[in-house]
Amino acid sequence: MTAPSNNYDVVVIGAGISGLSAAKLLKASGLNPVVLEARDRVGGRTFTVRNKETKWVDLGGAYIGPTQNRILRLAKEYGIKTYKVNEQEHLVHYVNGKSYPFKGSFPPMWNPVVYMDFNNLFRTMDEMGQEIPREAPWRAPHALEWDNMTMQELFNKICWTSAVRRFATLFVNVNVTSEPHEVSALWFLWYVKQCGGTMRIFSTTNGGQERKFAGGSSQISECMAKELGDRVKLQSPVYRIDQTGDVVVVETVNKETYTARYVVVATPPALNLKMHFNPELPPLRNQLIYRVPMGCVIKCMVYYKENFWRKKGYCGTMVIEEEGAPIGLTLDDTKPDGTVPAIMGFILARKCRKLADLSKEERLRRICEIYSRVLGSEEALHPVHYEEKNWCEEEYSGGCYTAYFPPGTLTQFGRVLREPVGRLYFAGTETASEWSGYMEGAVQAGERAAREVLCAMGKIHQSQIHQPEPESQVRVVFTSRLPADAAQPAVTSVSSPLQEVPALPFVTSFWERNLPSVGGFLKLTGVSAVLSAATAAGLVAYKKGLFPRS
Amino acid sequence: MTAPSNNYDVVVIGAGISGLSAAKLLKASGLNPVVLEARDRVGGRTFTVRNKETKWVDLGGAYIGPTQNRILRLAKEYGIKTYKVNEQEHLVHYVNGKSYPFKGSFPPMWNPVVYMDFNNLFRTMDEMGQEIPREAPWRAPHALEWDNMTMQELFNKICWTSAVRRFATLFVNVNVTSEPHEVSALWFLWYVKQCGGTMRIFSTTNGGQERKFAGGSSQISECMAKELGDRVKLQSPVYRIDQTGDVVVVETVNKETYTARYVVVATPPALNLKMHFNPELPPLRNQLIYRVPMGCVIKCMVYYKENFWRKKGYCGTMVIEEEGAPIGLTLDDTKPDGTVPAIMGFILARKCRKLADLSKEERLRRICEIYSRVLGSEEALHPVHYEEKNWCEEEYSGGCYTAYFPPGTLTQFGRVLREPVGRLYFAGTETASEWSGYMEGAVQAGERAAREVLCAMGKIHQSQIHQPEPESQVRVVFTSRLPADAAQPAVTSVSSPLQEVPALPFVTSFWERNLPSVGGFLKLTGVSAVLSAATAAGLVAYKKGLFPRS
Repeated sequence: MTAPSNNYDVVVIGAGISGLSAAKLLKASGLNPVVLEARDRVGGRTFTVRNKETKWVDLGGAYIGPTQNRILRLAKEYGIKTYKVNEQEHLVHYVNGKSYPFKGSFPPMWNPVVYMDFNNLFRTMDEMGQEIPREAPWRAPHALEWDNMTMQELFNKICWTSAVRRFATLFVNVNVTSEPHEVSALWFLWYVKQCGGTMRIFSTTNGGQERKFAGGSSQISECMAKELGDRVKLQSPVYRIDQTGDVVVVETVNKETYTARYVVVATPPALNLKMHFNPELPPLRNQLIYRVPMGCVIKCMVYYKENFWRKKGYCGTMVIEEEGAPIGLTLDDTKPDGTVPAIMGFILARKCRKLADLSKEERLRRICEIYSRVLGSEEALHPVHYEEKNWCEEEYSGGCYTAYFPPGTLTQFGRVLREPVGRLYFAGTETASEWSGYMEGAVQAGERAAREVLCAMGKIHQSQIHQPEPESQVRVVFTSRLPADAAQPAVTSVSSPLQEVPALPFVTSFWERNLPSVGGFLKLTGVSAVLSAATAAGLVAYKKGLFPRS
Repeated sequence: MTAPSNNYDVVVIGAGISGLSAAKLLKASGLNPVVLEARDRVGGRTFTVRNKETKWVDLGGAYIGPTQNRILRLAKEYGIKTYKVNEQEHLVHYVNGKSYPFKGSFPPMWNPVVYMDFNNLFRTMDEMGQEIPREAPWRAPHALEWDNMTMQELFNKICWTSAVRRFATLFVNVNVTSEPHEVSALWFLWYVKQCGGTMRIFSTTNGGQERKFAGGSSQISECMAKELGDRVKLQSPVYRIDQTGDVVVVETVNKETYTARYVVVATPPALNLKMHFNPELPPLRNQLIYRVPMGCVIKCMVYYKENFWRKKGYCGTMVIEEEGAPIGLTLDDTKPDGTVPAIMGFILARKCRKLADLSKEERLRRICEIYSRVLGSEEALHPVHYEEKNWCEEEYSGGCYTAYFPPGTLTQFGRVLREPVGRLYFAGTETASEWSGYMEGAVQAGERAAREVLCAMGKIHQSQIHQPEPESQVRVVFTSRLPADAAQPAVTSVSSPLQEVPALPFVTSFWERNLPSVGGFLKLTGVSAVLSAATAAGLVAYKKGLFPRS
């Protein structure tokens, strides 16, 4: 039946970053792994397209930043350089039909009540995150309470102003490509926390969107695949896993049969459903995989003849709050050397559903129209090229960026997310505990699953399975064109592979830490008013000699 | 490649009631269908086990009732008799550690505030249901608002008392094997509505649990399968559907290849994920199938030497509100002739997750312990036999009874639920618009999908696809042992196949229609109090001559 050459130590299912990281580590440990990939390419949810119009473009996962030390380690190993996403000029916040240029991570809120409300919301989310364990969010003291409400319910409880509630919706849309009413509050708070908090997850500079890989993120997978050689089998979707015999038997749609001692499943959890299991999965896992849908996003890249926004003093980042606008967030996607001017934009969650049926041309037209309004520029209406990728149509991703947990799921099913089933081990960024949902999480999960297999084989001790990653600590090589503002290195400077990506702490101001919420403020002023009135009354009484003098 | 004998007009995937109904109708229309079933049995989520201890027992779907005319038609055709679930003696409501015997569909609420609250909640759910179209709940006037909240949120808005909120939770648990915080309010309100409202869905007499099939519900599928003969292929899980050629190619895990002009997919929507599609499914369907998890339930049958509960004046129905109790609802499961005394109980939703890891013996022990407390009987502690079925472990169901829609899903993805994809048509009870989630919905969906195929072939007109089902109108054959209470025919009388199952309207009382909500009552009394005070003050003022007399 099975050719002897199809017998391996480990079958890894999925040649995304997670599966390839697992296979790489297994091979480096002297084992004989094979990687079965459903698609005709490696990279999974990273997808770099090369053509003459764009040179290269990341239509999938692209951004990396400080504290993502595992993916940076891989990049360094393969000599893949990173560069900073342009954030030199002003960002723009578009709200109520007007553009407000700003600097920093979040758009400023000028109305003092809105500011108090905004400050309180993000501080509260971070505080709640602090009591959620990264590795086991279901063990948080308030796990059940928070998991049984949607993020929308939590916003309704915390927020006093519609301005902040609207921005909070965008914050969820952008970070997890889903709606506040779709996701468990516990899950979303955990998600933000395991990325390092609201500042780290949302920031470009010093945050999750600080950098990109020069040449595209697929290079990471391509380099790993090259290293693995013919151990990577493309167009091999797995449809059956049989654990009933001495070896695990894995069958693919292209009618190959592989056998192995262990299997690492490195797909999004719900993609386990593509496989028929013998024996069946245990009840909790069987039901978990129906309960972790993938987010909705269309990544849209609009190319222009010239980088007109920078000339107008805009860096290319637009935070767009308008129900009718297709795009919620943009970032400059011009190449680090200034060529191929482009703007990257996300069509997110509900808008993805609304706009998916339009023609590509119509989507482009609407995107350019909003860019033109936000940037106040007629030039935005004249793109020279357009690339887009609707991840909702991908059978072997199910959506992007990552899985989300609807209310009630994380506490009830979360604990089996990375629990092995017989000789099956689970990787994929969804099973990570640091930057889950990102390329970094994919590496963490893949290497952890590989070490679980090594442990099962008796090659390492259980205490070695989970390994922290040291911060990249190498000499800094700056390019010659350092900008005047030393805190903001030139975007056009391509970092050398040896350049470290330092994680700077986010410093909060006294007011950010101590300003009351709107509710607190009202109480405070209420109490003060009562106190003032009482004092005044007392004073009057005293003056009028109404108190008996002893 | 493909043997000519494997070439059919239609491949039907799934030999549950829906798939078999589709194949039956297709065959009756002169076509050549084949049914591919993953399991080694037909029946899907109905599952009748025969053994000497039980004679027969339904471990899956079992209950039928008035207005379920399609499944009753099939039963009649095959001469399968129905009998009434025993509801002659008192039902018991167990709450706060005490048992309260009652008669009727819902336990009575004695506290007047609780009663007002209860009455208002169920009236409101039915009123909201009235504006939700059965065929297209996403078109309800408040669709978006209701879909973006969980049923828990809606309960929090409507209910004033914790007693009613607790009962409402049980109502959701029992009807859809999920938690109020897991499901969209729009979806749940739709679900109750398309079953005929809160009374119809929850009632035994005159409701969804009125009857069972003598001999077990699997007979329906078995009779259809017998009629279809060797067109039903067991142990044939489908893993691949290729629509790129002239005929659709369907491949099974047991390595058979079938070709057909059309395919009817008669599985729960999420089970589509078990198949690899070429071409890929369109984006909305590709994402829908990740967003419709199956409910959680363990069906537990406890057998006793004697029917001790009837002797104590209890019919066997227990409505149990206690967090620590495994079971939420029981019904008598004694055979219609009084033999094999048994109680059927459901372990539902959160409790299913909690108790799934226990041993079967331990579950039985805990079940008997609560039965003993609720029925106030030591005899409950001494079962003679036990049968149970945890549907969460079924790979080819994913759970039971049916799929639920988490918040935000129905309005965004619902419209593609039964939208054909090329030559694929979708059946399964989840795609029904009357008694979806029940055996009745399975028949409606299967026959509708079959007629869609007939329409695509030009054999019927589009207007013939959706067909209402006439109420069974045949002469009533009563058994000789009519009880004194004519409205409640004897449970031990096995109905003749010709007996009709009349749907009686539910009559609401003046007070049920007009009693205010607790909020309304407080406002009313508040206003009355102000008016009374004003009147009294006026009277006093008048008496004291404070009004100027003209």
